[in-house]
Amino acid sequence: MNFKQKLEKIVKKNNSLLCIGLDTDLEKIPKFLLKGSDPIFSFNKSIIDTTYDLVCCYKPNIAFYEACGIKGLQSLKKTIEYLKTNHSDTPIILDAKRGDIGNTAEMYAKSAFEYWGADAVTAYPNFGLDSLLPFLRYEQKLIILLLKTSNPDSKTFQDIYVNGEPYFMKMGRVIKKWKYNNIGIFVGATYPDELRSVRNLFPKSIILTAGIGIQNAKIKNAVLAGIDKNGKNVIYNNSREIIYASDRDDFGKVSRKKAKELRDEINKYRYDCK
Amino acid sequence: MNFKQKLEKIVKKNNSLLCIGLDTDLEKIPKFLLKGSDPIFSFNKSIIDTTYDLVCCYKPNIAFYEACGIKGLQSLKKTIEYLKTNHSDTPIILDAKRGDIGNTAEMYAKSAFEYWGADAVTAYPNFGLDSLLPFLRYEQKLIILLLKTSNPDSKTFQDIYVNGEPYFMKMGRVIKKWKYNNIGIFVGATYPDELRSVRNLFPKSIILTAGIGIQNAKIKNAVLAGIDKNGKNVIYNNSREIIYASDRDDFGKVSRKKAKELRDEINKYRYDCK
Repeated sequence: MNFKQKLEKIVKKNNSLLCIGLDTDLEKIPKFLLKGSDPIFSFNKSIIDTTYDLVCCYKPNIAFYEACGIKGLQSLKKTIEYLKTNHSDTPIILDAKRGDIGNTAEMYAKSAFEYWGADAVTAYPNFGLDSLLPFLRYEQKLIILLLKTSNPDSKTFQDIYVNGEPYFMKMGRVIKKWKYNNIGIFVGATYPDELRSVRNLFPKSIILTAGIGIQNAKIKNAVLAGIDKNGKNVIYNNSREIIYASDRDDFGKVSRKKAKELRDEINKYRYDCK
Repeated sequence: MNFKQKLEKIVKKNNSLLCIGLDTDLEKIPKFLLKGSDPIFSFNKSIIDTTYDLVCCYKPNIAFYEACGIKGLQSLKKTIEYLKTNHSDTPIILDAKRGDIGNTAEMYAKSAFEYWGADAVTAYPNFGLDSLLPFLRYEQKLIILLLKTSNPDSKTFQDIYVNGEPYFMKMGRVIKKWKYNNIGIFVGATYPDELRSVRNLFPKSIILTAGIGIQNAKIKNAVLAGIDKNGKNVIYNNSREIIYASDRDDFGKVSRKKAKELRDEINKYRYDCK
């Protein structure tokens, strides 16, 4: 089963376009967890146990684990194994934002798909197609190319005008010609107009978007701009607003409540606009 | 001591602008090493032991270690610790090509400088300044921004023309205005004209370049285009041609010979052109 099929199944099963970003930070998780032997994994396990039926995927961001060194990366491995054992129908996006020339890209692809066992990975298109082939060869996996990021300064380089359109759209037009079925696109939900332009350019592709929640992207705009004409093929990531919804013993329950709210709000606009 | 000072000292001491890329691949290292308990570290140690007096820095590429999972990353940690213990005057560039929005960039910066203990890191400027501030805050470290990469397809996006100049030069002009003393620039040595343009734009910055050797960049062109007016502030990386010079027991000796040849060839043009 390829990523698209896996996603379609879980979107239907859980009636959800919501992805939870596992950006687990030792300084932000409930303090009582720090007494345990693997606070990062314990935290992730609680979030997963209380939200798995509300999401269409999980997206661990490898930076947060690497910041804790080998120990943090061990917690990531354990988290992915836990997901694969207990929720094998839920795709895992490794948010790694990789990009490098061919022989290094091969190593990153091997790492993402063979070692970590992710179903999808975020990657930079900026090096050109030869740098992406090592990823694209994994036909069952989704390679999510970063076009326009959610941060304020993304405009500096990504929006530079080239022949009447911003650079990221110019890139999009080139990427569209590549004709690979396993390319996805990332656009920050903080830029709904840009999200709409990218959706129009890629009417059938899977789009990952982030920034709803703490980064203040309005959910309504993000949904109306991002969904395809069948109300799907888009993934809305939220990390901090869900996973850090509470720092008390019952944090899992509070995170579940927040995840349900977000899922339902996305669905509200998703169904409204059809 | 900041990166620039550290580099200046070792360049003088070893009379070298050569950096050795530790792109250690289990499939390419001498087979006899595979019998040991940590072949990656054993290989790196031999390369370091036989070349440390010929180089101005080492550049481990984290992708190669991550491809071997936690075990590979443990070998990277051990390699960096070995370097810091035995050759503390030799700067370590972590080739990680990181880039992400602010709160994730903080994690990558923490990882590169606090966990791995690198002196410099390679990073993407494409997200804009807010994504780089978490790195730039480490004032003693060098943040090497990727402008133009060495691979053939780098032209697809990096060379898109914007008002009469390629995109990477446009980026360079913006970066130049940022006024941070700890920004370095990466340009592939396979593009000597582009390297020269970047050197002219950044007359005093440290430039890291790669591609001499297997990627066929001519050393003469790369040196004439890359050095500053005092014959320095440029780092020439070679990985495969040096570290895989032999797959026999005496590989360290052969790597040393190759490293010496490259160092001396770089120096030949470096001094010739002054």
